[in-house]
Amino acid sequence: MTGLGWSQGSAPVRRRGPELERAILDAALEQLGAGGWSSVTMEGVAAGARTGKAALYRRWSSKADLVAEALCEGLPELGGIADHGSVREDLYRLCARMRDVMHSPAGEALRAVLHECDHAHADRFREVIWKGLHEPAHRLIRELVDRGIERGDVRPDATSPMVIEVIPAMLMYRTKVCGSEWPDSEIAEMIDGLVVPMLRV
Amino acid sequence: MTGLGWSQGSAPVRRRGPELERAILDAALEQLGAGGWSSVTMEGVAAGARTGKAALYRRWSSKADLVAEALCEGLPELGGIADHGSVREDLYRLCARMRDVMHSPAGEALRAVLHECDHAHADRFREVIWKGLHEPAHRLIRELVDRGIERGDVRPDATSPMVIEVIPAMLMYRTKVCGSEWPDSEIAEMIDGLVVPMLRV
Repeated sequence: MTGLGWSQGSAPVRRRGPELERAILDAALEQLGAGGWSSVTMEGVAAGARTGKAALYRRWSSKADLVAEALCEGLPELGGIADHGSVREDLYRLCARMRDVMHSPAGEALRAVLHECDHAHADRFREVIWKGLHEPAHRLIRELVDRGIERGDVRPDATSPMVIEVIPAMLMYRTKVCGSEWPDSEIAEMIDGLVVPMLRV
Repeated sequence: MTGLGWSQGSAPVRRRGPELERAILDAALEQLGAGGWSSVTMEGVAAGARTGKAALYRRWSSKADLVAEALCEGLPELGGIADHGSVREDLYRLCARMRDVMHSPAGEALRAVLHECDHAHADRFREVIWKGLHEPAHRLIRELVDRGIERGDVRPDATSPMVIEVIPAMLMYRTKVCGSEWPDSEIAEMIDGLVVPMLRV
């Protein structure tokens, strides 16, 4: 697609499937960011993506479906963590990365939606956070802890599933209960004050 | 008050201030337990306590005020934890006690209300959990950790405020995310698999 279509005012633009889909999801995220859950309408998103409502309903049967996919697609990937030579450094980087995902535009929108929508929808958006952030984080923490056991700076019996959950649990608790934004200093305090002591040989 | 009043069908009963107040709060908790937040009405609670609506409005200006006080008063106290000779045993008892408070009738009602009411009210009921459970738990954990430092089974530098938060964070995370009911075995797994290693000298 060229930029041409976008210079023709608000006339509908002919685009192929994935391209049109991307434009719709972007428009949904933009509306969400601007006015929150209650401001998003299928009409408004269609207008923002310069297409018709029918194009939306062919893909998503409700606003909740559309918003859930927009958020899911918009959330940055956690990615991998290179070996920094110590479990302390590896886990520190991972925590900073988790924080950055939650502070990305889609992450902020997700938290705002959770605070605004009703309980039936909230469960669905929590699922997006779970699949997009917590599940990959659990896998990655396990990997970094195993790497530490092999390297020798983690005790070999740090294998309880709960060991993996301490980091996401603390991130959730302080965010919810203390409204923490997790500055680097606080991440370092958590890693050095409790995670490393918990894992040390 | 004698039991007599209650045997006179649904006629109003004359009671003094604290006694009437207790009857109203009990009636509110009972309605909450039976039908949830949406089923509670000032009329219904007045009828349940066999008094008039005016007696309620003299004390609480809204249903949310009344329910918040009923929950706050109904939540069992965390109490103290005797010295069991090791930080492991002390913290294990504390966690079981925290779980029991949340599984008490008022604790269950509180969680149900949180899930049912809107966000404005939810913040208020979260405050009840915070003041009734988390704040006293933080104080108590600090006390047990300090006791361990004196006793010698806790490292002297386990003084980060975050050390105190690991237990409530894990209780909240597993309850919310995995729907855990915290059986004794899971409490033991948390204490032995991560809290004791984190605190050991």
